[in-house]
Amino acid sequence: MGMRVIQRIGEMQSWSEGERRQRCRVALVPTMGFLHEGHLRLVRAGRERSDRVVVSIFVNPMQFTPQEDFDAYPRDFERDCRLLENEGVNVVFHPPVEEIYPEGFQTHIDVERLSAPLCGAFRSGHFRGVATVVAKLFNAVRPHVAIFGCKDYQQLQVVRCMVKDLNYGIEIYGHPIVREPDGLALSSRNAYLDGEERQAALSLSRSLRKAELLVSQGERRGSAIVDAVAAELAKAPLARVEYVTLCDAASLQEISCLQGTALLALAVRIGATRLIDNVQLGVDPIPSPAPA
Amino acid sequence: MGMRVIQRIGEMQSWSEGERRQRCRVALVPTMGFLHEGHLRLVRAGRERSDRVVVSIFVNPMQFTPQEDFDAYPRDFERDCRLLENEGVNVVFHPPVEEIYPEGFQTHIDVERLSAPLCGAFRSGHFRGVATVVAKLFNAVRPHVAIFGCKDYQQLQVVRCMVKDLNYGIEIYGHPIVREPDGLALSSRNAYLDGEERQAALSLSRSLRKAELLVSQGERRGSAIVDAVAAELAKAPLARVEYVTLCDAASLQEISCLQGTALLALAVRIGATRLIDNVQLGVDPIPSPAPA
Repeated sequence: MGMRVIQRIGEMQSWSEGERRQRCRVALVPTMGFLHEGHLRLVRAGRERSDRVVVSIFVNPMQFTPQEDFDAYPRDFERDCRLLENEGVNVVFHPPVEEIYPEGFQTHIDVERLSAPLCGAFRSGHFRGVATVVAKLFNAVRPHVAIFGCKDYQQLQVVRCMVKDLNYGIEIYGHPIVREPDGLALSSRNAYLDGEERQAALSLSRSLRKAELLVSQGERRGSAIVDAVAAELAKAPLARVEYVTLCDAASLQEISCLQGTALLALAVRIGATRLIDNVQLGVDPIPSPAPA
Repeated sequence: MGMRVIQRIGEMQSWSEGERRQRCRVALVPTMGFLHEGHLRLVRAGRERSDRVVVSIFVNPMQFTPQEDFDAYPRDFERDCRLLENEGVNVVFHPPVEEIYPEGFQTHIDVERLSAPLCGAFRSGHFRGVATVVAKLFNAVRPHVAIFGCKDYQQLQVVRCMVKDLNYGIEIYGHPIVREPDGLALSSRNAYLDGEERQAALSLSRSLRKAELLVSQGERRGSAIVDAVAAELAKAPLARVEYVTLCDAASLQEISCLQGTALLALAVRIGATRLIDNVQLGVDPIPSPAPA
């Protein structure tokens, strides 16, 4: 049985209903395509947790702000399919834009408090677009489990909260960040970087390691940790910081003193390319459903 | 097999998954309880369209504005259960408020353009509350078909649009308004009316019949129809008009001239009680999914 490519929501739902009826457990890995090793790790995590794996490939216009890179976002569907077939994926769900947003579309989902800080403060409407399209993908694929990467940590928490608040009954698995050997978090947008920018981009992970070091040495003051991270980033002349924030890992609310499980999250522009990265600080495990 | 009362979302989902696996078709009739004959007709319509009928009873605080009658809203769960058992209902889904809105709840669904006019202009956040709780009920019950009354016509269109936009894959059936022999549309809020108010409330359906008469005589001008309805309502001294609007029955946008299928909708206060009613004018059938 080869891998099936499905473009229509109705066909996707029929397939899923058939699999569920046979008591097959379905995993969904939502992606925007132009796949890298990070995505393939999500696929493997999905396979370990299910009987059938669906990978969606949809570059979602609604989660890009008008000045962002929707048109330029890298795409290579043929290559993506070859990679996914090698991973034993059962279905690639690849709807055209008009299948997802037909004329007259007017429904939006907001996860209010979790969408406000961090990237939400700089990308107006981004998490509304994410929550809405993920809800649609969930209704189209009806998975038992869905796999997201922790690099987009705020997205992961928004989705977890939406699933809980709207009673989707879907397990959400957050996969640890996958990095290059030199520390750069994998991202489709790394393709935008030239050689010099690629070097400058290492400042993100380097600054996070600096924070971990400080915490291991006993530092608990938020300002000291954030300042050290900003200082490390400032050493890279091409890097322009958008934000460096220490927050509670569940609520994403800023904290001034390290306690429980905290998240240090940052967004940095390297030339024209916006990159994000994060690390959890503290001894507790990742919090699962996101409270207030 | 008696009727089952389920209070927990997880139990509701397990029941539904079991029924779907046996290829049983499930109907949901969402209500706020204090059932009347109108609700029972919805239940019968559900039974005709399915193998299993679930009736939800939940007075949804989120769809009441702060100054509205959430606390006073009439409730009689014991009586409701007797009525539903007589109708052969399989499950009453009766979650407590904290099951639907636990601490930390922060997700909302907006159906933008359809929520703005008519009642939406007077009940801020009402349709957000409706869309959100209906999405939750759909995820809890996972029905194949859901039955709504046409008295709450805007609600019906908001739900239809949400189902289409978010790909719920649920059939929505709008049941014609059920009326008392003298024309009053059935509503749980009719219980608020004293004798004199009950008489005044007849002005709603009487004014709609007036509009139908005018249209049958060839009137097509929106202003003439709306004015005649307002004049009829003005004859009842206890009636205070909130709105009388002629609009397109699919988009709910106001129209100045009758064409296609139009909706004449009104909201009137009789003393402290807010009542709504509507009629479709024109020759076309009810439009199904709501476009822009």
